[in-house]
Amino acid sequence: MQRSLFITFEGGEGAGKTSVLQAIGERLNNRSDILFTREPGGIEIAEKIRSIILDPAHTAMHERTEALLYAAARSQHFYQKVIPALESGQHVLCDRFIDSSLAYQGYARGIGVDDVLAINEFAIGKRMPDVTIFFDITPEKGLARIQATRADEINRLDAEGLAFHHKVYEGYEYVMERYPERFRVVNADQALEQVIEDVWMILNPILG
Amino acid sequence: MQRSLFITFEGGEGAGKTSVLQAIGERLNNRSDILFTREPGGIEIAEKIRSIILDPAHTAMHERTEALLYAAARSQHFYQKVIPALESGQHVLCDRFIDSSLAYQGYARGIGVDDVLAINEFAIGKRMPDVTIFFDITPEKGLARIQATRADEINRLDAEGLAFHHKVYEGYEYVMERYPERFRVVNADQALEQVIEDVWMILNPILG
Repeated sequence: MQRSLFITFEGGEGAGKTSVLQAIGERLNNRSDILFTREPGGIEIAEKIRSIILDPAHTAMHERTEALLYAAARSQHFYQKVIPALESGQHVLCDRFIDSSLAYQGYARGIGVDDVLAINEFAIGKRMPDVTIFFDITPEKGLARIQATRADEINRLDAEGLAFHHKVYEGYEYVMERYPERFRVVNADQALEQVIEDVWMILNPILG
Repeated sequence: MQRSLFITFEGGEGAGKTSVLQAIGERLNNRSDILFTREPGGIEIAEKIRSIILDPAHTAMHERTEALLYAAARSQHFYQKVIPALESGQHVLCDRFIDSSLAYQGYARGIGVDDVLAINEFAIGKRMPDVTIFFDITPEKGLARIQATRADEINRLDAEGLAFHHKVYEGYEYVMERYPERFRVVNADQALEQVIEDVWMILNPILG
């Protein structure tokens, strides 16, 4: 029997992860041995932690507190949802995971990749993903895609500025150099159907 | 001008920290250059994090999530209250700090002192206390003291069992061996007035 796989999906804003995963989910619809999730994933404790992070009244939140809260929510989602699924024999496909924290908080926000890695390794007991698919698209093109399709998100993203999203992209490049063995890169600057096909060509053989 | 000092107070249950600190606070009452605090210390974000930890409905909380949440609350209290006070020239006296997490979660709960240290060093940017006063009393005597004076707390402490409190004590011994330079030990198995006097004899010279 094949070992259960923990597969994560990463990328910047507007890379198309969510749309692609939805399409992949439809193709895999009848397989009870696959769990799709994303943090906080309906896990009550993780949801409550996320609500503290996202509360707009918490302008005084320190960046280290925020990083620890993301790691705490990750930990609870991981032990309450991901690990039980893997142990029951399911493959788990997770939209964003540890690499998002490394790229966004560790690298782009400047806290430091090693330090953010340390608290996230603590959070997940060093159980890293088996495979991570990176949706590769320049920040310019990713943000332009959002402007075209999800105008309500523009303000939040504009506020960060393009320079920040370039740093996120650099952060992912750094992380991929660090973990070349688990990363697969998909060209996300293609028509949606082609991106879905490329992701499918990676997943189909390894999901068996 | 003397550098501001960050002084913490540690010990097991029933060691008398709170009573002693209250008495010390009264002696120092008129000094505006001293801040007494304890986590979460009225810091809104830290209070909210603590309320997630302490919510009795959260029986599914993983021990790593709990440790990360304690570190997150510590971080916010530290950067929003302790650091500004130190930078404004105040000495800060804090009832329990990082060593409580090392002894209770790292050692007694078995998560591992090094791992719990890593997330707590992240939380406070490696700014450790300058001086830590340990209230030394055996778990048997500490718990007996609580039974005599605060009967309402017996149930919670009984639930942990004496073996757990012995592990906490061992955890503190381990931490003191690791950081001999900042620890001062006070015999807490004496009449309250004598413990106050012993703590005063340590604090008075260093507070100037």
